[in-house]
Amino acid sequence: MRAIDWISGTADRPGHIRLLDQSLLPQSESVVDIDTVDDLIDAIARLAVRGAPALGVAGALGVALAVQNLEPAAADDAIAKLRVARPTAVNLALGVDIASAARPDGTESVLAAALAVRDDDIAASTAMAKNGAALLEELLEAPAAASARLMTICNTGALAAVERGTALGVVEEMHRAGRLQRAIALETRPLLQGSRLTAWELQKMGAPFDLIVDSAAASILAAGGADAVLVGADRIAANGDTANKIGTFALALAAQYAGTPFIVVAPESTVDRQTASGADIEIEDRGSAEVGQIRGVQLAPEGVSALNPAFDVTPADLITAIITDRRVLRPGRGERPDDSY
Amino acid sequence: MRAIDWISGTADRPGHIRLLDQSLLPQSESVVDIDTVDDLIDAIARLAVRGAPALGVAGALGVALAVQNLEPAAADDAIAKLRVARPTAVNLALGVDIASAARPDGTESVLAAALAVRDDDIAASTAMAKNGAALLEELLEAPAAASARLMTICNTGALAAVERGTALGVVEEMHRAGRLQRAIALETRPLLQGSRLTAWELQKMGAPFDLIVDSAAASILAAGGADAVLVGADRIAANGDTANKIGTFALALAAQYAGTPFIVVAPESTVDRQTASGADIEIEDRGSAEVGQIRGVQLAPEGVSALNPAFDVTPADLITAIITDRRVLRPGRGERPDDSY
Repeated sequence: MRAIDWISGTADRPGHIRLLDQSLLPQSESVVDIDTVDDLIDAIARLAVRGAPALGVAGALGVALAVQNLEPAAADDAIAKLRVARPTAVNLALGVDIASAARPDGTESVLAAALAVRDDDIAASTAMAKNGAALLEELLEAPAAASARLMTICNTGALAAVERGTALGVVEEMHRAGRLQRAIALETRPLLQGSRLTAWELQKMGAPFDLIVDSAAASILAAGGADAVLVGADRIAANGDTANKIGTFALALAAQYAGTPFIVVAPESTVDRQTASGADIEIEDRGSAEVGQIRGVQLAPEGVSALNPAFDVTPADLITAIITDRRVLRPGRGERPDDSY
Repeated sequence: MRAIDWISGTADRPGHIRLLDQSLLPQSESVVDIDTVDDLIDAIARLAVRGAPALGVAGALGVALAVQNLEPAAADDAIAKLRVARPTAVNLALGVDIASAARPDGTESVLAAALAVRDDDIAASTAMAKNGAALLEELLEAPAAASARLMTICNTGALAAVERGTALGVVEEMHRAGRLQRAIALETRPLLQGSRLTAWELQKMGAPFDLIVDSAAASILAAGGADAVLVGADRIAANGDTANKIGTFALALAAQYAGTPFIVVAPESTVDRQTASGADIEIEDRGSAEVGQIRGVQLAPEGVSALNPAFDVTPADLITAIITDRRVLRPGRGERPDDSY
């Protein structure tokens, strides 16, 4: 099933959103049907649905839900709350805005616009996978280009989008093409999207992989343990600075030290021309509990204070390439995401 | 109580080792009495006792236990096993060797040599704390020198030694002197020595601190969030390359990027002149289970393969200073640990 989708209305039940509750993976594959924007915001807050592309689709489908079920004033309020449910990924607000722009044309048009966001995301994932595999052909020398060891952080696969995903979509494309020697997945503390979600996806696709703690990436890279690092993005500023899951910046520093290509994979919709640089990106802090506990198990002494930035910013000059559905950019060569193309 | 100590023999029970079982902290403060080398090796393997200085003391006291309780041939075997119970920290083998050297002089001499290793460690901790606080006075500008924000990884406090410790001993010294604004402790996956042990020690000493996931250190440093990084060491090669807990190398890269001083604190006994460089240091891999689970909670899908190097090597040129109980070295200025002093 898709990570998030729209279920058409029937005589018994109006159209609504269906998603796989990712907060319960890998232990349980639980499907959730969502009929209200409040429930959608709750699902976003507890990360039942997550990943920048999936959040864009959630934003668009949420607007469709609001205009279908609510009076215009109530829909306004619900949409405004949904738009800021998470601050860092640009896609959520963008999805909301695209669907909202169709409101003057009526409910059907809003739904059509939202479904177009979903379908565009699917098409973008396919294009990114192909662009990524082609870039690896260009960047890597034999035999790595034909048998690559690819390191990745967080979850950027089908679960983070509607289908396929971004960085992990490239890994899957390489695996399908028989060009993946091994994936290396960072567990991605604090919420373990790597060990819970990426490992689950890699197992499902039958790809060989090793899991590592986040802090082991640097020495593995320095020892030549990976041929490329592939990461997603939550927001790409006009100058190429890229916000992504916490740990991405440390990984970029390690890749630079090792001389390993560091590649960002994200749909064009993640490029935010309104944000000049990384310094202008708001970073969500998710509070102490996620650090002091894991899945209800207390790790630290009770009541410990934690800093818990959910994202960090990787400066453009540490990024070898940004792959979108439409182009391959080389920030290291001075190419900027806000260049015309 | 001390993290590890020798309990003198009585009419009822021969002399033996007593330690605090660190694998159960912070939930439970459990004292373990150890009467055999096999039990000591088991305690080392499951990290009931850990930390390079404490392992040195454990090695020395373990030899005293062996010669007290075993026939010479059996003692030989037990001591040989103990010496290699963990491969990366040089201190364990060194402690074994120092106590073993006294065997020709009899059981009492072996115990005296082992107790001297313990007492030397206590004296070294005090000297390192003073040397570290003095170096911070020199390296940091006002107001940071008087109100420092100090970042540290793993546990290098009293639990890692007999008393006080290494890097965390410097943090404690700064706190006692009213010069600590705040400590920042990395949780230190996979075994969480930071959140379980360092947070526990910082709470006990009443020092203000924040816990962070390991991968958050880089962006916090880049934002100017710490004035210095202090870490311990398991083995310092002749050229200054330093093996320490996994994640230390990534932290050094981040400190270099941020321009933050990166300081290794370790007793002189951690300097291994027989090891030319980091490439010659054996790195222990502790297997998949520690990564896929936390305290019995399954995080990743069952059966996942993990790479789990317990240590990494930080190249000497990333190290601002090495503080021992006897000197302050500046590897960045070309000073080498094997220089005479």
